[in-house]
Amino acid sequence: MLEVNGDRLLRDLRDLARLGATEEGGVSRPAFSPVDVEGRQWFRRRVEASGLELRGDGAGNLSAVLACDDPAAPTLLAGSHLDTVPDGGRFDGSLGVLAALEALRVLKEREIALSVHLEAISFTDEEGTLLGEIGSKALAGCLEVEDLESARGGATALAEGMARLGITPETALATARPAGSLAGYVELHIEQGTRLEEAGLQIGAVTGIVGIRSGRLHFQGVAGHGGTLPMDRRKDALWAASEFLGRARRKVVEEFAPGVMNCGALHVRPSAFNVVPGQATLSLEMRHGSEEILDAMEEALLQLAHEAAADLGVEVIFEAAERCPAAPSSERVVRMIEDSADALGLGHTRLLSFAGHDAQVLAPITPTAMIFVPCVDGISHTPKELCRPEDVVNGANVLLHTLLRLAAPVVA
Amino acid sequence: MLEVNGDRLLRDLRDLARLGATEEGGVSRPAFSPVDVEGRQWFRRRVEASGLELRGDGAGNLSAVLACDDPAAPTLLAGSHLDTVPDGGRFDGSLGVLAALEALRVLKEREIALSVHLEAISFTDEEGTLLGEIGSKALAGCLEVEDLESARGGATALAEGMARLGITPETALATARPAGSLAGYVELHIEQGTRLEEAGLQIGAVTGIVGIRSGRLHFQGVAGHGGTLPMDRRKDALWAASEFLGRARRKVVEEFAPGVMNCGALHVRPSAFNVVPGQATLSLEMRHGSEEILDAMEEALLQLAHEAAADLGVEVIFEAAERCPAAPSSERVVRMIEDSADALGLGHTRLLSFAGHDAQVLAPITPTAMIFVPCVDGISHTPKELCRPEDVVNGANVLLHTLLRLAAPVVA
Repeated sequence: MLEVNGDRLLRDLRDLARLGATEEGGVSRPAFSPVDVEGRQWFRRRVEASGLELRGDGAGNLSAVLACDDPAAPTLLAGSHLDTVPDGGRFDGSLGVLAALEALRVLKEREIALSVHLEAISFTDEEGTLLGEIGSKALAGCLEVEDLESARGGATALAEGMARLGITPETALATARPAGSLAGYVELHIEQGTRLEEAGLQIGAVTGIVGIRSGRLHFQGVAGHGGTLPMDRRKDALWAASEFLGRARRKVVEEFAPGVMNCGALHVRPSAFNVVPGQATLSLEMRHGSEEILDAMEEALLQLAHEAAADLGVEVIFEAAERCPAAPSSERVVRMIEDSADALGLGHTRLLSFAGHDAQVLAPITPTAMIFVPCVDGISHTPKELCRPEDVVNGANVLLHTLLRLAAPVVA
Repeated sequence: MLEVNGDRLLRDLRDLARLGATEEGGVSRPAFSPVDVEGRQWFRRRVEASGLELRGDGAGNLSAVLACDDPAAPTLLAGSHLDTVPDGGRFDGSLGVLAALEALRVLKEREIALSVHLEAISFTDEEGTLLGEIGSKALAGCLEVEDLESARGGATALAEGMARLGITPETALATARPAGSLAGYVELHIEQGTRLEEAGLQIGAVTGIVGIRSGRLHFQGVAGHGGTLPMDRRKDALWAASEFLGRARRKVVEEFAPGVMNCGALHVRPSAFNVVPGQATLSLEMRHGSEEILDAMEEALLQLAHEAAADLGVEVIFEAAERCPAAPSSERVVRMIEDSADALGLGHTRLLSFAGHDAQVLAPITPTAMIFVPCVDGISHTPKELCRPEDVVNGANVLLHTLLRLAAPVVA
């Protein structure tokens, strides 16, 4: 049975992890950063060494292409992203890109004729350092001028970052693939949870991706002298943000599980030992598999924010940032993943993804699904993130066979 | 009766407020910053224009000196500081320095012979941008090598800042004035509270300054994926910091009033929308007039920090930073302030200061007291900080007459 070259794939993963390597054993390669540029240059060299065709687009997406004989054939995509969160791990994103590259290399080496073009793609800024999933959104034709203007990393930083990649807002907005040009999208990824590990299974066939709503709560109080202003006369923005955080945490655990919220960043001004905080800006992300429940969750949390602010005498406004609707997978592709796992003798189950992925952007425009493999203790987005070598190779083989099934001519 | 030149003093205050002026009408002139250097150059020019002697020392303190005929006579100090908190106001510090300068100018113009040297001094970094009260501590001989190494702004930033002022750790540590060389210290300052305003009084004679304890609480959790990590498995450092903040606030209000606490800064890592915070560092300041109650307050708050951390599955350590013991004023100088106010026909009362001031550093080594004047609505450390012209002039006149009383030969 056809298999990927596991050693070559594992070596690629190790080599790439050196770019942005942190002392703790992780990787810090945020999108648009100089080290992201280094990672792109490394990928470019690996594609060139493979004899595959290198392709870039106006959104900074980078691909290896294995073209079929029919120029008019559609393109089957597989991939993920090469960027990481700050202080992230070695597998999130990289695994999907490098396994797709490996699958194409094997098919090229075996000279297997296919009826579609195959493309292993790395999407720009999946993690949202400046503008989440900008690459896949641009390719899917759903990137809007407003997205660029309201980028959560700031429009200026985005413009500077795009310049570093040699792209512009104009080129990104002109990146959409023509309708009908795609034959599907398959993304291999670590689970970032413990369901496979706890069930002792090797493969997760992802049936859909939760919706994500994000934004910033701006608490506006009144700065003042931290010694002379009596406690009961303060309008302390940090007090209000903290109060919200505690109430919101309890609300989500009690009423919205398995939905989650995350407050990952908090900025206080003026930020001095002896000054009462006049402003506190708290980032907020909410995730759930149901759009209806996300509506209720957003409403409940914003109400809590207003109550906490009112209780502490400050104001609050919510500035919505990116939101991504829940995205169901293609049932046909999910079945192909299951059939591939069966053929390879790997145990599998169906799962919902709680993380956002480029796949959710592609799902509305082409048959899409994801393959999950276990990661140790479910740990992700930290230096401890670990995908065992056998799981790397199992996942790449399931990806390879899923692509072969998708690439086969559909019998009418 | 001898009076200061109020117009000249008010003009000086207006001119100085242009350096570091913010859009909101305040001043941002943090110690050691380039704009602090501009403020110092401006003060230097004003001293030179006055015909007073300019003096600098190894800790960056800057003075105008009016020497008496006896070189061996002690020196009577009056002053405050020219630095501000970030986004601060126009009067905190500047008022005390410029009123002292004005008092010396009047005495020089009137050619009033005194039995002591008079010195109008601006102390370095009273606000603690890098190392609080470094200037007064150096002059008082209580600056230690350890203070420089554990500076709350960081030892590296302090070294860079000192270089900008042309001083070094060695020169700062060699700045102490000889024992017996000082005849006293008087500091005019805005009240930064509403007690004078509410009582309709013009002058506060400050009987002492509260003690201050400060430090940082480092909450250490485990970073993780903000979408896939279930809420009940997180060790979120920001959750713990927030929980502590709420509990500590309630504790201080209920059990330690009129003592206060302030959490003015909070830094979260890795600080991304979609990453569970692994670290949160919260600044903490506690103030009370009694050292014994400060002991109890510190113990209670650290216990709350450990409880909050334990409840949320994270660790916490407290890194103590600067602390300043409560400092009672000289009763003799307090009476001179009251007598001066009486002579000028100004209403006065005795007050405790809830803010730290250079005066508390000087109090242990020379007869010290402070003069408070009202500021509108008690607002301070913000652009809204306002001291009315009549209060500026009243305060400067009380300072002038208190200095005259202190400078008079003590009748045995």
